[in-house]
Amino acid sequence: MQQNVYDNDVFYHSYIDLREKSTNFNDVLEIPAFRTLLPDLQQTEILDLGCGFGQSCSWYVSQGAARVVGVDISEKMIARAKQLYHQDKIEYQLRPIEDINFSADQFDLVLSSLAFHYIADFKSIVEKIYHCLKPKGFLIFSQEHPVATAKAVSNGWAKNEHGEKLHWMLDNYQDEGLRKQDWFIEGVIKYHRTTATIINTLIETGLHIVRVLEPTATAEAELRNEDLKQERRRPPFLIIKAQK
Amino acid sequence: MQQNVYDNDVFYHSYIDLREKSTNFNDVLEIPAFRTLLPDLQQTEILDLGCGFGQSCSWYVSQGAARVVGVDISEKMIARAKQLYHQDKIEYQLRPIEDINFSADQFDLVLSSLAFHYIADFKSIVEKIYHCLKPKGFLIFSQEHPVATAKAVSNGWAKNEHGEKLHWMLDNYQDEGLRKQDWFIEGVIKYHRTTATIINTLIETGLHIVRVLEPTATAEAELRNEDLKQERRRPPFLIIKAQK
Repeated sequence: MQQNVYDNDVFYHSYIDLREKSTNFNDVLEIPAFRTLLPDLQQTEILDLGCGFGQSCSWYVSQGAARVVGVDISEKMIARAKQLYHQDKIEYQLRPIEDINFSADQFDLVLSSLAFHYIADFKSIVEKIYHCLKPKGFLIFSQEHPVATAKAVSNGWAKNEHGEKLHWMLDNYQDEGLRKQDWFIEGVIKYHRTTATIINTLIETGLHIVRVLEPTATAEAELRNEDLKQERRRPPFLIIKAQK
Repeated sequence: MQQNVYDNDVFYHSYIDLREKSTNFNDVLEIPAFRTLLPDLQQTEILDLGCGFGQSCSWYVSQGAARVVGVDISEKMIARAKQLYHQDKIEYQLRPIEDINFSADQFDLVLSSLAFHYIADFKSIVEKIYHCLKPKGFLIFSQEHPVATAKAVSNGWAKNEHGEKLHWMLDNYQDEGLRKQDWFIEGVIKYHRTTATIINTLIETGLHIVRVLEPTATAEAELRNEDLKQERRRPPFLIIKAQK
């Protein structure tokens, strides 16, 4: 049974506040880097795994996508997506990412933003993605970086008595599997995999690695918010573009 | 001007002691993992970059290689190689790796063990390797892992008052470039690059990523030496197999 923290009331409202009411890592770091990897979206058919409240699905349509299927496990997220970003070219599906079952060769792009670290069986989902990608189609996904998921703590910074960050604590790197972290609520379940496992799983499934990003914030965002420079001390995210 | 620590007397003798008189990371961790990536060596022509005292060159010949060219910056290492592993099929060249200048399409394999973290200009050496690899030829190399080179300290373990390892200290990850570390002697110069930069440089040069390893020690070595399990806490090495 997959964990569905996004339908927990406390988590959901905290998350919505984070995404909609403040500048956050997604907006200034993960999304800009992710979008540098996108090809021309004109007339493309796109599958968005872990679509959340549909913000990206809508953006893909604005960039010319012919059809976007957004999949998410959270009833609340899908409900909000249908309310905020209801468009003819977008179809929202309420289901765990693990349960997708699309016919072969139908998507030009499978995109997934910060969802795969919630997936227990990475190999299975990559095989399903490979199956539904058209030949030469791309999988582009971001996830928490393995150096961020390795140690099972909510905040991996070692700090001095003044609360200043000393360094990032890396541990348990080779011990792949479940991690429990506190993020808005207690016991959010994530799955740690090494960078090598992630890349080799893609290759073994038949995908070619096109580009790997360990992104920093945009220069403009770093100018506005000095704290973002701290993110240069360890990579918070891993983004991979692979081709069928 | 490339640094040549291996011709420093203190460094040289300490290194030889490490490699020849004790069980070390190379023998139980890096070399076994590296060799799992090798194809059948029968009748292959091999370039070994940073060949040291020729141990691997000789092993490649024992596995059927038709010709091995070993390149190393260290006069002492090349002299010892010629003394210990003098064979008709091996040609030793005394020069910095950066100065190789082979004609096109002549090697089936370019191999390099724990040398590239000494190279300032990674892109240039990858271009030279691509040039001298035969079509479908492989580059297989190991280097210190980017999480190990990122922080400019000789030993990245945070320890408690009893000397027990608490976690690995990761810092300065995005700040690529020169690092000075003390290893046998003071001021050994290494170059830090991110995993993303390393992989993308290979791809941009025209190579395909075949496999990525962040190896642990062999199970047998871990049984003999409990300390080796500590290496599971952070990856000490990165090994990549790429194909032209």
